[in-house]
Amino acid sequence: MKAAIIGTTGYGGVELIRILHTHPTINIHSVHTTREEVPVWNEYPHLYNIIENKLEKINVAKIAEESDIVFFATPSGVSSKLVEEFSHTNIKMVDLSGDLRLRNTEDYKTWYKKEPVQAELINKFVYGLTEWNRGEIEKAKWISNPGCYPTATLLGLAPAVKEKIIKTDSIIIDAKSGISGAGRSPSRDTMLAEMNENFKIYKVNKHQHIPEIEQQLLDWNSDIKPITFSTHLLPINRGIMSTIYVSLKEEYTTSSIHELYEEAYKNHPFVRVRPLGHFPTIKEVSGSNYCDIGVDVDERTGRLTIISVIDNLMKGAAGQAVQNANIMSGLHETAGLNFLPLYP
Amino acid sequence: MKAAIIGTTGYGGVELIRILHTHPTINIHSVHTTREEVPVWNEYPHLYNIIENKLEKINVAKIAEESDIVFFATPSGVSSKLVEEFSHTNIKMVDLSGDLRLRNTEDYKTWYKKEPVQAELINKFVYGLTEWNRGEIEKAKWISNPGCYPTATLLGLAPAVKEKIIKTDSIIIDAKSGISGAGRSPSRDTMLAEMNENFKIYKVNKHQHIPEIEQQLLDWNSDIKPITFSTHLLPINRGIMSTIYVSLKEEYTTSSIHELYEEAYKNHPFVRVRPLGHFPTIKEVSGSNYCDIGVDVDERTGRLTIISVIDNLMKGAAGQAVQNANIMSGLHETAGLNFLPLYP
Amino acid sequence: MKAAIIGTTGYGGVELIRILHTHPTINIHSVHTTREEVPVWNEYPHLYNIIENKLEKINVAKIAEESDIVFFATPSGVSSKLVEEFSHTNIKMVDLSGDLRLRNTEDYKTWYKKEPVQAELINKFVYGLTEWNRGEIEKAKWISNPGCYPTATLLGLAPAVKEKIIKTDSIIIDAKSGISGAGRSPSRDTMLAEMNENFKIYKVNKHQHIPEIEQQLLDWNSDIKPITFSTHLLPINRGIMSTIYVSLKEEYTTSSIHELYEEAYKNHPFVRVRPLGHFPTIKEVSGSNYCDIGVDVDERTGRLTIISVIDNLMKGAAGQAVQNANIMSGLHETAGLNFLPLYP
Amino acid sequence: MKAAIIGTTGYGGVELIRILHTHPTINIHSVHTTREEVPVWNEYPHLYNIIENKLEKINVAKIAEESDIVFFATPSGVSSKLVEEFSHTNIKMVDLSGDLRLRNTEDYKTWYKKEPVQAELINKFVYGLTEWNRGEIEKAKWISNPGCYPTATLLGLAPAVKEKIIKTDSIIIDAKSGISGAGRSPSRDTMLAEMNENFKIYKVNKHQHIPEIEQQLLDWNSDIKPITFSTHLLPINRGIMSTIYVSLKEEYTTSSIHELYEEAYKNHPFVRVRPLGHFPTIKEVSGSNYCDIGVDVDERTGRLTIISVIDNLMKGAAGQAVQNANIMSGLHETAGLNFLPLYP
Repeated sequence: MKAAIIGTTGYGGVELIRILHTHPTINIHSVHTTREEVPVWNEYPHLYNIIENKLEKINVAKIAEESDIVFFATPSGVSSKLVEEFSHTNIKMVDLSGDLRLRNTEDYKTWYKKEPVQAELINKFVYGLTEWNRGEIEKAKWISNPGCYPTATLLGLAPAVKEKIIKTDSIIIDAKSGISGAGRSPSRDTMLAEMNENFKIYKVNKHQHIPEIEQQLLDWNSDIKPITFSTHLLPINRGIMSTIYVSLKEEYTTSSIHELYEEAYKNHPFVRVRPLGHFPTIKEVSGSNYCDIGVDVDERTGRLTIISVIDNLMKGAAGQAVQNANIMSGLHETAGLNFLPLYP
Repeated sequence: MKAAIIGTTGYGGVELIRILHTHPTINIHSVHTTREEVPVWNEYPHLYNIIENKLEKINVAKIAEESDIVFFATPSGVSSKLVEEFSHTNIKMVDLSGDLRLRNTEDYKTWYKKEPVQAELINKFVYGLTEWNRGEIEKAKWISNPGCYPTATLLGLAPAVKEKIIKTDSIIIDAKSGISGAGRSPSRDTMLAEMNENFKIYKVNKHQHIPEIEQQLLDWNSDIKPITFSTHLLPINRGIMSTIYVSLKEEYTTSSIHELYEEAYKNHPFVRVRPLGHFPTIKEVSGSNYCDIGVDVDERTGRLTIISVIDNLMKGAAGQAVQNANIMSGLHETAGLNFLPLYP
Repeated sequence: MKAAIIGTTGYGGVELIRILHTHPTINIHSVHTTREEVPVWNEYPHLYNIIENKLEKINVAKIAEESDIVFFATPSGVSSKLVEEFSHTNIKMVDLSGDLRLRNTEDYKTWYKKEPVQAELINKFVYGLTEWNRGEIEKAKWISNPGCYPTATLLGLAPAVKEKIIKTDSIIIDAKSGISGAGRSPSRDTMLAEMNENFKIYKVNKHQHIPEIEQQLLDWNSDIKPITFSTHLLPINRGIMSTIYVSLKEEYTTSSIHELYEEAYKNHPFVRVRPLGHFPTIKEVSGSNYCDIGVDVDERTGRLTIISVIDNLMKGAAGQAVQNANIMSGLHETAGLNFLPLYP
Repeated sequence: MKAAIIGTTGYGGVELIRILHTHPTINIHSVHTTREEVPVWNEYPHLYNIIENKLEKINVAKIAEESDIVFFATPSGVSSKLVEEFSHTNIKMVDLSGDLRLRNTEDYKTWYKKEPVQAELINKFVYGLTEWNRGEIEKAKWISNPGCYPTATLLGLAPAVKEKIIKTDSIIIDAKSGISGAGRSPSRDTMLAEMNENFKIYKVNKHQHIPEIEQQLLDWNSDIKPITFSTHLLPINRGIMSTIYVSLKEEYTTSSIHELYEEAYKNHPFVRVRPLGHFPTIKEVSGSNYCDIGVDVDERTGRLTIISVIDNLMKGAAGQAVQNANIMSGLHETAGLNFLPLYP
């Protein structure tokens, strides 16, 4: 299978290159940019002598003819336009931006402050939260890949929310992300001298991933009330931890909740529920497609604490995109993704 | 005034040295350790040629005779014994450990897993949360200095809790700390190769600062229910952020809450309520005694988010200890503490 | 092919696991330790649910019977004993320690301060600097894998030294390493709070890699005089940069030297001479087996500056070990090693 | 004394604010920028509620009338113009840029690629390498403050060069700097995601501090030949280490060289020659005005290794600027600078 990558100069795009370079079936055919047509290594010297491709301008017809699948690692507002053009061709699409995720186009306007794609087109995209949407993904041709925070958060919440064991107005998510999530455009906020030895909260109560998370939670349980969702920047490159707090409707022990989670994910190779009493750290999934989860019930408060970690560029972006591409293409979901976390 | 520092080889002790070295009134008279009697710079080469003191063994009578005040920067379990001995002398005491904080000695046993000091002695120590206990501190001779997490958290919660505008069973605190909080004893968990590019949760629902925070909250409002309090390790040296979530009893705007906070802290030089819509980062207080606070009400959920940051070694330990020593000694609370954060 | 790994709990050992987990031909058969027989994930939680092996005690006969190759990722002083025992069996060996590298056993005593292996045994080990010793490696059964610093340094120096264009008494190497090179045993020096925001020189003029580098240089040019070699610790996990200074015997331009280097390495997939005027950074090889090199001649001083970077755990340890194992086993040298650097 | 700071929004400018805020004699009167006239805390939130000044446009006459001294923390090319205007007033000047350092204006053109100031004006500025130029500084009104790299390097080299014990063509300096040296303008190269876990060499053999170092060395010993000087970026905020290599003309022991250095700096409070066999790390001077030095002679090679560390924003910029201002103003050189390094 041949793949085209659009938006190669961002961190999501270059992570797609890293994965597909050793993928047994899906090969990089062409890489594209809206900027200068230079060799990839000009943008990413670590690819010198390995990835010989030159960045090319986007020619929809040519891409659709030459490749079997196209990945959009483009920013919000850019994907929407491209997707519309490619929708008239026969190529498979996986979009990593937020443009095709919100079925309610008003939500997109409110939270992204941009013009949404037509609802009709959005509805043809399958939301690629692999573990919980595999059936639809198998039949899909177009995938809207989940956001990084929503992936960590929804995988953490799913068993509890679907089982309806939590109070529906009690969901609080305190999320922390490595700085690669902020993209590769230089700004004062992402300078090493400013963020090193630092930690900050941002977009307080205003992050655009809130409606994405709520949309999925409501699909699972229509009684879910608005959530509290906070995002913080860590002075590290990769990784997200969502620390999630929910109130339980009844009394549960940690061990019964742990069993529920183990059961829910037992057939999912990329979700690892840690043993009772163990909790994952961010580095333990870094560079890999794993989502690791730990749970603890506090009997003093009746609350369940859920810890969920991913690599934001992998399971939170390029990794899950390839996982979805695999399933959509009839391959095993782990194809090209079975490498280990980089530790230390 | 002459000061003795016990427990000089830990990070809290060396921060006391940093502060007192330029303090206009309180001077370092002697520094003590239970380990080898070597010059301070053997343990801390950055003090070479500056701090000429040699570490001395602890001689209670001698210290009490020579110095006006003694700071205990010793670990829990060590302070308790020392404090008992010094209690028979006339010296002023500031204890930075957790040994003298919990009035309910059963709580100490439960959370610290150690033998508590006698309740009688504990009750003679004033809890040194300076901004809210100044009256007692002025009259005190013995101070139990608050924990790092409790300081950030209680200063963040105080105005809302005291004003009784929050639902008493709704307090959730997601706290993150720099690694100096874990002390200077080498362990795998604090190695750079293990924690760098990492972030981890620890002591889930079991941190010994929980009863300390609850004790103070109950003093302010006896209806407060058990809190959820999580602690995470950041791959940085200094700083704590407490992200605090509470449900409001009635509808409030961010601006009315902001006003409440500004009013509460307007006369307190070391608490800075940031302007409406602004939130502090950890580095913005690093190396200083400031506690910076930001607030935001989410009208979708009726919850208030409070962000509170401190330097764990300063306002969370040595800084507040000196602030209390100042007040207890009739000095201005900012004496020796009016230096700026180190930025960047 | 079946592989046994001894010394699995160190960073070199766990990197061997990372590589061999996706190696097409050499598979992990057993992992060994001198410590507790626990599942690997107890030591390395990031391997939970992936590497099911339990750490086993070292049974030489059993390992030699069951496996085709054994890797020693053990500290100096430990390998020596093991190697002697395994030398009576038929198994292939790759030793990652310094025990089998120095042919002059007096040098070992002087620099390692330990008892050396018998010279006879040492001489049967082939020094695995792959790019310059391939012929011997192809015929070898026992490999002594080069040190991390010597690998970066020797690959940087080789073309200039072998071509005899430098003054033989002019070699100065200023090397910097990530902290994983210091191993996984906790010590104050490797704590995050001590090394973060820090940079230090260590073992000034006394590093045990000095005789290893000189031995190889003398093999290439017997006129080479003692070198100056400094080592520094970087506050990062992975990577080494050797900045190398040599005086040129005659006048050369940067471009003629660059040509010499390109020619020397044109057939070596893991050494990338960067384009004229470009210099590699450490992160650009992180997680990969590449050694990247840049050169610059300063006409003001007649000196050549050579920059050579590797990942100390990959090309500096486990990666080169597998590269050698590949060649020794008749596989392509890139087998299992063709993954990209992790960036960012 | 009243001080004006021009170029307040850079890291050098804000460090001047940090120092002068607690300086006993020199007070911040006004702060200036060529950009927006906003409160300082808009640019630096850590100064909120502490530094009430608003950034003002530069009015030469007004500044010269109201203040006693003006600090230029402006980039090269900007200082030159300002200095010319202020030279017609009576105000004391300390310039932190490179514009007034090179007496040979051709060198400035060659290395800075900009138009130099008139030689006549340059010659009226005293080069403020405090420890070696105190006599002139005492009488000066205008100071050209040394560069960060030159300060660390020259203090390391001075005793050996002045004593003429080294071969004059043998000086090699391998310097490493924290990233604040690259300034506060966002660029891809200074992004956390790009530099974190990274280390890079830059401006190979082309750094503009080369002629500055050579000019001073030639003043000390006119036989000195062109030096090799390399600069690397560390993934930390503050600090420089210069590792310096020189060949000794005769045989010396480490201890005789150490004595020479101790003697040279015995009356200089901000230079600490470490005890024999000890070497400073960068963090051990961080946030302070100290320059710490260690020396080692390698008898195998006849070379002397000198390690010199400073905080690039302190002794390498604002700290030395204040030290010079103190001396120029008849104050003790340590006034306002006697605070300790921030550790950890």
